[in-house]
Amino acid sequence: MYNFKIIIEYDGRRFCGWQKQGQKNSIQETIEKALGKVLRKKIRLVASGRTDAGVHALAQAANFHTAKKIPPEKLLAAINSHLPKDIAVVRIDKARAGFHSRFDAKSKIYRYTVLARGFSSPLLRNFVYLCRFPLNLGLMRKEARVLAGRHDFKSFCASGSDVKDTVRTIKRISIKKSTYELRAMGYEPKGSLIAIEIEANGFLYNMVRNIAGTLIEIGRGRFKPGSMKRILAAKNRKAAGPALPAKGLCLVKVIY
Amino acid sequence: MYNFKIIIEYDGRRFCGWQKQGQKNSIQETIEKALGKVLRKKIRLVASGRTDAGVHALAQAANFHTAKKIPPEKLLAAINSHLPKDIAVVRIDKARAGFHSRFDAKSKIYRYTVLARGFSSPLLRNFVYLCRFPLNLGLMRKEARVLAGRHDFKSFCASGSDVKDTVRTIKRISIKKSTYELRAMGYEPKGSLIAIEIEANGFLYNMVRNIAGTLIEIGRGRFKPGSMKRILAAKNRKAAGPALPAKGLCLVKVIY
Repeated sequence: MYNFKIIIEYDGRRFCGWQKQGQKNSIQETIEKALGKVLRKKIRLVASGRTDAGVHALAQAANFHTAKKIPPEKLLAAINSHLPKDIAVVRIDKARAGFHSRFDAKSKIYRYTVLARGFSSPLLRNFVYLCRFPLNLGLMRKEARVLAGRHDFKSFCASGSDVKDTVRTIKRISIKKSTYELRAMGYEPKGSLIAIEIEANGFLYNMVRNIAGTLIEIGRGRFKPGSMKRILAAKNRKAAGPALPAKGLCLVKVIY
Repeated sequence: MYNFKIIIEYDGRRFCGWQKQGQKNSIQETIEKALGKVLRKKIRLVASGRTDAGVHALAQAANFHTAKKIPPEKLLAAINSHLPKDIAVVRIDKARAGFHSRFDAKSKIYRYTVLARGFSSPLLRNFVYLCRFPLNLGLMRKEARVLAGRHDFKSFCASGSDVKDTVRTIKRISIKKSTYELRAMGYEPKGSLIAIEIEANGFLYNMVRNIAGTLIEIGRGRFKPGSMKRILAAKNRKAAGPALPAKGLCLVKVIY
């Protein structure tokens, strides 16, 4: 058997998420079908983790086993010819026999993108969350620092989740102004594009969207300075801000 | 009468272009209708120039006159609340009485974006042209230099155009590797994103798309080195490469 590691880029809008859910359109199933056509066998794809309905990925990682001997570059072209336009396999590498895309992942990086201005961006609208209020980035950065390290993130775990252990380690959390294209062209737009990036060894259900929602409440002044420490200590989902919409979230990298 | 200058961002996919064309959906008409609702008068909008069906804009410029006294920031919010998601007015300024967005434009910058790799990008697919062949950027840059300056660009003017004077001045033409998000994240994708940027005092019908198409033919080796000089001198549309699709084209800035 050969073990292949693949990197996948997708526009999550049309899908119920990574994982199969009854009759719905899942990313996993769509790729498994394409692999099945190419390799003429039912293929079971394992990803680094699920992404929810509507969430995008620049570089999701997954792996699968096959008895078929096929050069990775040939497989890459063949799979992509069987995939819809909103999913692409951007890279394929041979992996060692025991490689497992979920268990071997050291950490993952998610990015939540917020456009802070009074009106939508026609060119970016499907990939950012629009916040119509001005944001205090300095304060957001200061409060975000509280989250770095090993903590019980229960306050940021969706209430429907049945996960028992809600302790995770955030290795890095950053809030950056993105290079908005208009700005890059010397044209200063009203408002700005803000990227909240979180690298962690694991993520709870809706964790990034809940943290981003809490940071927005802080940045716009609805939660006062010092809130993050209190919210983290509360270990109660109700203490935190709202979950932001899926469309602003993107799985950016899986680190092995 | 007051004269307002507005800057507009749009996703051109759904439109027949800037200008009205019978029953079709035009950007001009959509904005004029929104302005009409806000100002309760029929408004006539003049743009820096037309953009074709499917072409995007980061910062198209236009102006209109109104007798109504209204602060620009109030007008901005009001217009946007009447516009569809694929059009946004990103800025409004009071202009001097005689300001004309077309006649006063010194130059315009268009960008044509090409993704050079073997398969589409799910996240960028509506805003780039996919070229499945490797491109020789050094050669493309060298050949592009031939176009800088004042020339008769007849070879790059769509054959259906009835323009008599095909002389224009290209002030700047550059071919850059764009910061593709995957690359920015330290993940080196196969292929790369290439931005062809042209600043000129005016553009002929399909000029950027024809120049981009010619540069691609050169970059992938179908037109040999030295071709650009010959094509420019031919003053014949048939000498140049094909027009590339609208979706890769974006009006980036109008300079006054």
